[in-house]
Amino acid sequence: METLQQNKDTHMSADDVKKYDKEYNMHSWSAQRDLDPLVITKAEGIYFWDSNGKKYFDMSSQLVNLNIGHGNRKVIEAIKKQADKMPFMGPAYAVDVRAKLAGKVIEKAPPNMGKVFFTLGGADANENAIKIAKMFTGRFKIFSRYRSYHGASFGAANLSGEPRRYICEPGIPGFVKFFDPYVYREKIKFRNEEEASGFYLSKLREQLIYEGTDNVAAIFVETVTGSNGVIIPPDGYLKGIRKLCDEFGILMVCDEVMTGWGRTGKWFACNNWDVEPDMITFAKGVTCGYVPLGGVIVSKKIAEYFDDNALMCGLTYNAHPLACAAGCATIEVYDEENLIENSKNMGILLGKYLEKIKKDHISVGDVRYIGLFSAVEFVKDRETREPLVPYSKDPEGIMPSIVAMLKEKGFSTYSHESCIMIAPPLIIKKDELEAAMSILDEVLYSVDKYVKELKK
Amino acid sequence: METLQQNKDTHMSADDVKKYDKEYNMHSWSAQRDLDPLVITKAEGIYFWDSNGKKYFDMSSQLVNLNIGHGNRKVIEAIKKQADKMPFMGPAYAVDVRAKLAGKVIEKAPPNMGKVFFTLGGADANENAIKIAKMFTGRFKIFSRYRSYHGASFGAANLSGEPRRYICEPGIPGFVKFFDPYVYREKIKFRNEEEASGFYLSKLREQLIYEGTDNVAAIFVETVTGSNGVIIPPDGYLKGIRKLCDEFGILMVCDEVMTGWGRTGKWFACNNWDVEPDMITFAKGVTCGYVPLGGVIVSKKIAEYFDDNALMCGLTYNAHPLACAAGCATIEVYDEENLIENSKNMGILLGKYLEKIKKDHISVGDVRYIGLFSAVEFVKDRETREPLVPYSKDPEGIMPSIVAMLKEKGFSTYSHESCIMIAPPLIIKKDELEAAMSILDEVLYSVDKYVKELKK
Ligand SMILES: Cc1ncc(COP(=O)(O)O)c(C=O)c1O
Ligand SMILES: Cc1ncc(COP(=O)(O)O)c(C=O)c1O
Repeated sequence: METLQQNKDTHMSADDVKKYDKEYNMHSWSAQRDLDPLVITKAEGIYFWDSNGKKYFDMSSQLVNLNIGHGNRKVIEAIKKQADKMPFMGPAYAVDVRAKLAGKVIEKAPPNMGKVFFTLGGADANENAIKIAKMFTGRFKIFSRYRSYHGASFGAANLSGEPRRYICEPGIPGFVKFFDPYVYREKIKFRNEEEASGFYLSKLREQLIYEGTDNVAAIFVETVTGSNGVIIPPDGYLKGIRKLCDEFGILMVCDEVMTGWGRTGKWFACNNWDVEPDMITFAKGVTCGYVPLGGVIVSKKIAEYFDDNALMCGLTYNAHPLACAAGCATIEVYDEENLIENSKNMGILLGKYLEKIKKDHISVGDVRYIGLFSAVEFVKDRETREPLVPYSKDPEGIMPSIVAMLKEKGFSTYSHESCIMIAPPLIIKKDELEAAMSILDEVLYSVDKYVKELKK
Repeated sequence: METLQQNKDTHMSADDVKKYDKEYNMHSWSAQRDLDPLVITKAEGIYFWDSNGKKYFDMSSQLVNLNIGHGNRKVIEAIKKQADKMPFMGPAYAVDVRAKLAGKVIEKAPPNMGKVFFTLGGADANENAIKIAKMFTGRFKIFSRYRSYHGASFGAANLSGEPRRYICEPGIPGFVKFFDPYVYREKIKFRNEEEASGFYLSKLREQLIYEGTDNVAAIFVETVTGSNGVIIPPDGYLKGIRKLCDEFGILMVCDEVMTGWGRTGKWFACNNWDVEPDMITFAKGVTCGYVPLGGVIVSKKIAEYFDDNALMCGLTYNAHPLACAAGCATIEVYDEENLIENSKNMGILLGKYLEKIKKDHISVGDVRYIGLFSAVEFVKDRETREPLVPYSKDPEGIMPSIVAMLKEKGFSTYSHESCIMIAPPLIIKKDELEAAMSILDEVLYSVDKYVKELKK
């Protein structure tokens, strides 16, 4: 440990960073032995650089959080100013940036929204939304969907439907799963979006009734399912959930951790379908991760309930001043740089590139996009739609090797099941998008070749 | 919302801060209507100031997190430097401050410790420790204690024994509670600490056997129970838990979220009894809340297991660079300013003041202290030891009014059940401690009077 002590204020070599990282850090969702993480030394706009000077397009905005891109000066200056003034103050007190950010969040949220409870990230935003739903309704069952990721802590993981929840089982009593409207993979072929919505809503209604509608506190949906493949709800679906919730006194909660703050071309994804949920959970884009922050937005009706009933929620770093200062500046950046509009406009262009890619590459089964939020889904066979890798299994590491090929050529993103995520910072420009998408196009010829080999 | 928009970069008046806070923010653990939070405008060292210029001794270090006090320049400069350089980078990458902080944490941790997984606060540190215990052991039962608070998310709340867990019930299967060694309130009177430890350990052993020792993944303890009254384990107790864990292949997890980083006069509270847990969870003191950070320290043995087994843990803001930079600087502050030693030395002085207070005030039943971590427990009657307020009920608001009297005189802290917390920043000096404690002394005469009235 001598080196570390002696050089404490001096530069660490990339080798030292690697060595210490390997020796002392545990990384997420992996066995550690074979990890060989890139050492990142610089990040600016839509790019970042490794210690060898190699430059990458950040085509997933890291974990779909860096909506404003890396190194935004306005947000950085706001952090520095708040650090000088008051980095922390306990949750019981009123602090200017804490009050201001709450006002700004409500200003951008749908008109039925009343107050905010701030947390640190997406998982604990959902944890608190579950608790609030239980308090407000006095009911204990929580509906959510199989193709979903809501976070890794026990409440959020039990909300999640995908395999990352298994380690949090045996599960919390009362957490019930239903299926996403994953039209592309449904055995039934629908004539149109309304028909699809009708089908999924009728199944959900049936399931609510069998679970006892009076027992159900809330239905959680990712407004657009994110990590599990950018599954966009068919028209009428979210409105239909709103209606079911109204009919049975159930709260509708939109998890907008990934989709909020301009990602889909609107402030919140639910704006795309004019739906007013009872709660919205958010994180990522609110500060873009410059300082950790998340939260729950509750309707005026829910807020009123807590005028006279104790809110049994709390965390030491609730409404953290440094994070709130970053949040205020970030929201101003969205406004000043017209990023919501840019997300919409560049999203249209992204859609065109993706449709072309789908046309040109036999390995591509489906492309799904809304704003700058999109995924490419790979198949072994376009006709049968058989996924490139079987569910939850990829023993040959096909998906990681696609991601590695892309990265090798300077296109950084990540994969989930048979999909790769394409969700660049909302500041991306036309020529940058074009340059990045041509890398993808190039790499997909290798994937096509692999798929053709499979068929032989 | 006009005012907010127009004045976005200008000063907000205290009235505006209050107004916005009231209108848009939800505060923890309370009904909102009658809240009237102080507007805090400045904080420095062991003091903070409200918008009327009133100055407070921060005698709880906010939520026992500000070990280095407010406004530490070294940590602030480190935050500013990292903000300029790279506030965020995704968890998959190696980054200098991320690697460096992991090394520093392991350097300060007990010698059996191997690696760190960083989170954002105390609750998610515990969430991840539960998951790691389940993965490592393949078992699903988790033991923890009634008089404990481990956080408010579902996993951490189910770990907690006090009433704040109820809203997270029906609970997670397999979470089992046992009792703390709360010697002061035990009906049996023990001859010495060893006898007390022997009693509690024999009860625990019996309960482990009845739950099936092969089912038990971990025993979680706050090394010194914090929020629930600074309950200090009798000699032999923690060593005894270590022995039980070794006997049955159970992991011993010390929650040092509150007690870690010098609070008890050692780096970690477990150092006071020379115990090496299998995992330590931490938060608060690692950055003192300047930037949110928490984490799990795992033993070398556990770390090795994850060389070849996937660590099913993750969060977007894992090992957040801005937080890691703050953490590195904070640990250097502990070293450079000899804060661990100061905690020990000032702790001895604090103990003397507390013993005098106990002697002088009939409302004081017990005082418990270790380092700069202490509580005063109020009673209606010293003989019967009847608590000043019944468990989980304080309809007359006696405890809040004690806290308010203290605050009125410039002594800031908080209460829990019949206890008030006294845990000033570790930078506190002799004369400051004396000044603060004389405020407490003064206020306690009013409490004595109240208690005397009760007896009439
Ligand atoms: C939709 C959604 N909800 C919740 C989360 C969890 O957020 P965090 O990683 O900040 O806990 C994520 C993370 O990717 C997410 O995509
Ligand atoms: C011992 C202990 N564990 C865990 C927590 C939860 O930490 P956080 O509030 O950061 O979630 C606390 C908070 O006070 C604590 O005292």
